[in-house]
Amino acid sequence: MTEQTATTTPLAQRSAEELEAFAQEQQQAYAALKARGLSLDLTRGKPAAAQLDLADDLLSLPKGVKDAAGVDTRNYGGLEGIRELREMFAELLWVEPEQVVAGGNSSLVMMRDVLVDLWLHGGVDSERPWSQEEKVTFICPVPGYDRHFTLLDWFGIEMVTVPMHDDGPDVEAVAQLVASDPTIKGMWLVPTYANPSGSVVSQEIAARLASMPTAAPDFKIFWDNAYAFHHLTEEEAKSADILTLAAASGHPHRPIMFASTSKITLAGAGVAFLAGSVETVKWYTGHLGKGAIGPDKVNQLRHSQFFGSPQGVRDHMVKHREIIAPKFAEVERILTERLGGLGVATWTRPTGGYFVSLDVLDGTASRVVALAKDAGIALTPAGASFPHGDDPRDRTIRLAPTFPPLDQVSEAMEAVATCVLLAAVEQVRGQA
Amino acid sequence: MTEQTATTTPLAQRSAEELEAFAQEQQQAYAALKARGLSLDLTRGKPAAAQLDLADDLLSLPKGVKDAAGVDTRNYGGLEGIRELREMFAELLWVEPEQVVAGGNSSLVMMRDVLVDLWLHGGVDSERPWSQEEKVTFICPVPGYDRHFTLLDWFGIEMVTVPMHDDGPDVEAVAQLVASDPTIKGMWLVPTYANPSGSVVSQEIAARLASMPTAAPDFKIFWDNAYAFHHLTEEEAKSADILTLAAASGHPHRPIMFASTSKITLAGAGVAFLAGSVETVKWYTGHLGKGAIGPDKVNQLRHSQFFGSPQGVRDHMVKHREIIAPKFAEVERILTERLGGLGVATWTRPTGGYFVSLDVLDGTASRVVALAKDAGIALTPAGASFPHGDDPRDRTIRLAPTFPPLDQVSEAMEAVATCVLLAAVEQVRGQA
Repeated sequence: MTEQTATTTPLAQRSAEELEAFAQEQQQAYAALKARGLSLDLTRGKPAAAQLDLADDLLSLPKGVKDAAGVDTRNYGGLEGIRELREMFAELLWVEPEQVVAGGNSSLVMMRDVLVDLWLHGGVDSERPWSQEEKVTFICPVPGYDRHFTLLDWFGIEMVTVPMHDDGPDVEAVAQLVASDPTIKGMWLVPTYANPSGSVVSQEIAARLASMPTAAPDFKIFWDNAYAFHHLTEEEAKSADILTLAAASGHPHRPIMFASTSKITLAGAGVAFLAGSVETVKWYTGHLGKGAIGPDKVNQLRHSQFFGSPQGVRDHMVKHREIIAPKFAEVERILTERLGGLGVATWTRPTGGYFVSLDVLDGTASRVVALAKDAGIALTPAGASFPHGDDPRDRTIRLAPTFPPLDQVSEAMEAVATCVLLAAVEQVRGQA
Repeated sequence: MTEQTATTTPLAQRSAEELEAFAQEQQQAYAALKARGLSLDLTRGKPAAAQLDLADDLLSLPKGVKDAAGVDTRNYGGLEGIRELREMFAELLWVEPEQVVAGGNSSLVMMRDVLVDLWLHGGVDSERPWSQEEKVTFICPVPGYDRHFTLLDWFGIEMVTVPMHDDGPDVEAVAQLVASDPTIKGMWLVPTYANPSGSVVSQEIAARLASMPTAAPDFKIFWDNAYAFHHLTEEEAKSADILTLAAASGHPHRPIMFASTSKITLAGAGVAFLAGSVETVKWYTGHLGKGAIGPDKVNQLRHSQFFGSPQGVRDHMVKHREIIAPKFAEVERILTERLGGLGVATWTRPTGGYFVSLDVLDGTASRVVALAKDAGIALTPAGASFPHGDDPRDRTIRLAPTFPPLDQVSEAMEAVATCVLLAAVEQVRGQA
């Protein structure tokens, strides 16, 4: 998807002399870059301080301590979270309040808890605890979210990968795998503005995932809708209504949805949500109650008062967009200007979420990350978007431009472009 | 420990006629009680609203968002919690800051997480994950905390009981069990103002627990110091320094300590702590990092600012004492006045914590709880202080007087006394 410009010749079509000149140019540029002694970071998908400032009012809330039901939020209890916040996010996530649990500050922790429950006890539709299966396997669309893979690995769950396309995972590959292999118990999916590809799962693919026959009766889709409301343009992608699709296909317990306000209010002090069939919610809170008394309801009340309504959440996201869209535009501008037409890289142009996924020449991603590191630019490790950190083509780099201020994004991306070009010309000349 | 009064004859020494008169009296009292249509609750150890009000200032904190290290508490990260709060509670718990993790809103969740880690991966001194052992057993001093037992049961961990005395668990019984049975991997202990007995583990017993030989190399003491600072008198019990004792005996990884501010600030929105050897802390955060990004550091900063210092915590607890000590005095007064000298009950006179443990005549606890329920008084289910809810002598009832206002404590305790007397006379007459 890189753009060709009239004056640019792809590296692969250049003569040895041209390549040598190009290489010298890049080596000089890289030496100059190193000499600047930068210290920049494009590693993690963290909100910038300016984004966190948008939620400043949270810090002096709540006013009053009772929720809409009259419950004192300061005391123990209420495993499922306070009603008004569940209602608010039920509307946003297109589910019923009875299908939503409002939890603590981390949806990742909720995912872990669900896996622990499945592991120790099995799900509502399981024949036995997953720990009693000979083997448990998950399908992982790649590139994907490194923490998803780390979590599975912690359980000893095996991972098979399928490609992630612009409209979601390669659903043919998924359908084939789940149809025949009963050890495949689940799959990860970030359905909206996926990490890191920015893909949005289409209605068609969502419907297929919801309805496809699976050899395992208790196959689960971990529908991690972390970026459901995180639009970068005015054209806002709508997440597929996976719970309804699954229920309509006779698999109501298949999807378990996760979301959070981590990238809406405060990354460390937001509220996380789980949604699923009513039975799934009952199953989840049942297990939760064996080792928990209730979530931080004061923080939930704080959030409910801060947003005021579902529309309050949407309005708030527009303010985030105004801060981060220019950073994504800057990534796009620099990649296009510096790498366009050279045949050395492709990259995503996300319309939401927190990442740009940059594919460089096969075999050069680690080199790019190493070059960047030596020049003081921290990039997510090459391979991080793949299970066990193993990118078989060593080509995918995740760029996270939200956290640094705009001028640092520019500096860092110029540096990344230099590293990509140097690694590319090394590779092309080495293969010549 | 009931007090004899000169004019009282124990029921067991009364004649049939006297007992019949007494029974009629109690039946009338109970009928009158029922007629009042009360709705009172002495079930759970929850702080009263007046106690929660003491932390009102928390609701408009923090001022500023950076911790002492300059970290923006609003963003992701910092699995071990913010430094200044760890330092504050390290001092209070007599450990080093490196031995403390400040977590989320629930120490019970930390206990569950530790059990999950041990189950899936084993501890720093384990030969294998606990899930790969043929059997895992815990020692449970009784009466004890029902949620501890429920949690073990959730894992399928077996429980053996030992008696809890005034100075801690029957340490001879514990030492014998652990010496010979390698399936015994751990024990629960609420060392200070135990739930529900109010016992305080003596230095001698703590030292013995720390040093005793165990057949399992990875035996763990779950040292749940939930009431470490929750004194009811000016004579404040000091918790034994179990980590130092254990390290000195060559078992540094044996104790894992838990504490929280749930009953210091806000029951649902406090901060929980784990403490152990440095290796244990590293082990815990290592596993935590597989499925969590960090705790709610904003709430930690809020707490750090609210307390100001370790002394701030101690001073705050004095205000709690002023609210709840009169409730405990009322329980004691009514039990003494109504049941003293009759030989139908003994009870604890705790100097801290949240509970009074009432032992009625063998075989009558369930009857007392049922009678109370029918009269509109909710009591913790008989047997709740024992694994699987099974009190073999059916005699122990946990009373939790902190939550209701003082006048309701009086009303409820008068009612409890009536139920105890009725059940007792039924029992004594039935056996005569």
